[in-house]
Amino acid sequence: MQERLQAIYHVRCEAHAIEERARAIAVEQSVEMPLSAVTDDFVRAEIVGRVEAIAEIARGQFEVRISLAAASVGHDPGQLLNMLFGNTSLHEDVTLADVAFPPELVAAFGGPRHGLDALRRRVGAPARALTCSPLKPQGLPAAKLAELAARFARGGVDYIKDDHGLADQAYSPFAARVAAVAAALHAVERPGAATARYAPSLSGDLDAMRAQLAAARDAGVDTVLIAPMIAGLSNFHRLVREHPAVAFIAHPSMAGAAQIAPALLLGRLFRLLGADAVVFPNYGGRFGYSPDTCRALAQAALDRRDGLHRSAPVPAGGMTTERVPEMLDFYGADVMLLIGGALLEAREGLAEATAAFVASVHGYSYG
Amino acid sequence: MQERLQAIYHVRCEAHAIEERARAIAVEQSVEMPLSAVTDDFVRAEIVGRVEAIAEIARGQFEVRISLAAASVGHDPGQLLNMLFGNTSLHEDVTLADVAFPPELVAAFGGPRHGLDALRRRVGAPARALTCSPLKPQGLPAAKLAELAARFARGGVDYIKDDHGLADQAYSPFAARVAAVAAALHAVERPGAATARYAPSLSGDLDAMRAQLAAARDAGVDTVLIAPMIAGLSNFHRLVREHPAVAFIAHPSMAGAAQIAPALLLGRLFRLLGADAVVFPNYGGRFGYSPDTCRALAQAALDRRDGLHRSAPVPAGGMTTERVPEMLDFYGADVMLLIGGALLEAREGLAEATAAFVASVHGYSYG
Repeated sequence: MQERLQAIYHVRCEAHAIEERARAIAVEQSVEMPLSAVTDDFVRAEIVGRVEAIAEIARGQFEVRISLAAASVGHDPGQLLNMLFGNTSLHEDVTLADVAFPPELVAAFGGPRHGLDALRRRVGAPARALTCSPLKPQGLPAAKLAELAARFARGGVDYIKDDHGLADQAYSPFAARVAAVAAALHAVERPGAATARYAPSLSGDLDAMRAQLAAARDAGVDTVLIAPMIAGLSNFHRLVREHPAVAFIAHPSMAGAAQIAPALLLGRLFRLLGADAVVFPNYGGRFGYSPDTCRALAQAALDRRDGLHRSAPVPAGGMTTERVPEMLDFYGADVMLLIGGALLEAREGLAEATAAFVASVHGYSYG
Repeated sequence: MQERLQAIYHVRCEAHAIEERARAIAVEQSVEMPLSAVTDDFVRAEIVGRVEAIAEIARGQFEVRISLAAASVGHDPGQLLNMLFGNTSLHEDVTLADVAFPPELVAAFGGPRHGLDALRRRVGAPARALTCSPLKPQGLPAAKLAELAARFARGGVDYIKDDHGLADQAYSPFAARVAAVAAALHAVERPGAATARYAPSLSGDLDAMRAQLAAARDAGVDTVLIAPMIAGLSNFHRLVREHPAVAFIAHPSMAGAAQIAPALLLGRLFRLLGADAVVFPNYGGRFGYSPDTCRALAQAALDRRDGLHRSAPVPAGGMTTERVPEMLDFYGADVMLLIGGALLEAREGLAEATAAFVASVHGYSYG
């Protein structure tokens, strides 16, 4: 008996058709051919997907649990996604809601190298919520972004990340940017506080990202931002394995809204593959995630399941200092709050606005 | 004045709110911050996305054209996707419908190295529709897949591809499979016809795919299958540039149903980045694409625009020999027909069923 993954799909479907739809998904995500034509005993017994359970969760909405052979995934994250949802992503009426992984696969992928607690230790903040601000807009040269970083740092923020639109563009090449920003942050004196940590944004193919990581290391930078759905999950995981000293903040670019549950993709899968922190759209901002979605995502990033390090949830997308108490009420201390545009709007008063954001986080009393 | 991409989004929205939504998308996909906080003249003039046009295309459904600076993309395919749709993919009510690329960017990406006409020449079929069959199910050892390939080849099919679920699994490692299948195909005598071409499926990170390409080359194989949305677009394009003698067949795994128009993603973008052929779900099969979607996709793969080689459209997903005349009526001769499960159902009669499929394609009279 081989190990199996348990994949949960939500299917919009008429009740009389759900059993057939469920069987079709099980076949699509495994052998992808008529079962009558599968003659091999091992394939029939082990490789074909199995419908394990079907439940109606709302009128015309079904939860279907299908088990898939772990052997069909091997240890490749891209193949994991391919087997869980590759062809079925082409069906508009099916979403991938959750997955239970066999322990062997969890151990092979390994989760974060560092996680929330290590991110806290790096900035000398062992218990409180962390703070983060983004460098933007893209289009600025490296020197101007470095100035901006210094102002965020003077405001007291823990982490400063590139906007995910910053790549290796001609107006701000990665290597020049990382050197300029790192130097600027080291020059900011912060009595009683650690130097602010910089997370530049990786882009391009695997070799390009490796070269960027080398440039980051040369500048003394040990944290990076990456968009796993653009990099490719296999390449993301490869970088995590190759760079054990580096912390990875995952960005949700191209993670979609409609087809894979955010708690699964951003909270569980990105964490399983090594995300030390995961940025996601907070409720009540520029995106449509609900409070329930955000809570489930944070729980998935933080739960003690599987013995993995915990990923820091990073709710973002139009947040403001005014919302800090409400967000800490909601998420508790196990969170990294990311505020950008609302601070940048202060223009000349950026350092002061940042200091107010930081003071609000540091001064919050957890109930 | 910098070069700009023109991105077309479809937005579900109330009429009174569309102008603000359009501006919000333009900002989200460029500077991602309040415009009031953007002080740099170059950024304001060139980098900020611009709403160029808004049109109501149905009640509560709007087409929005937004121009984005080509400089923000550079020459990186992943960054192209990031800038076109990264964060906006998180909105359920927006789809990316089409993109017009500046000529400089088209030239930089370059399109297919070979294209439909070269795929035809490789199998000595200069004008007719091509035929293709897949190796499956996964779970079979290499030797059994090689036997299957030989039977498809005896039936006269032009191309034999791995099922996209075949990766580098323990039960059929890539290198052993490609060697066994290539040897089996060379041993099949096909009087008056070229040797069938084999396209094994690439998987894993960029280095893993490079090693697979080297194993393919060692076995004399010059065609491969790749799922660009899983590999990462940047890695896909990198492989195309590094392997000028290899033809790439793109697979739609993880290409989604709801968020990017299939004609754009599979027809135009995969082609632009180097897909010599592109597999997609045909109407009336296991997936929900409409005839209009399939027609638009084939046109996008084949149009003479931009001076690129044409990609072969490969409609698939539950096709049968009975549908060959109808499909050739619909697509014409500029197509590669892919039939798998329906032939495998013939079991011992596989070679004969394949021969009937091939005869139907070869004997079709284009009206």
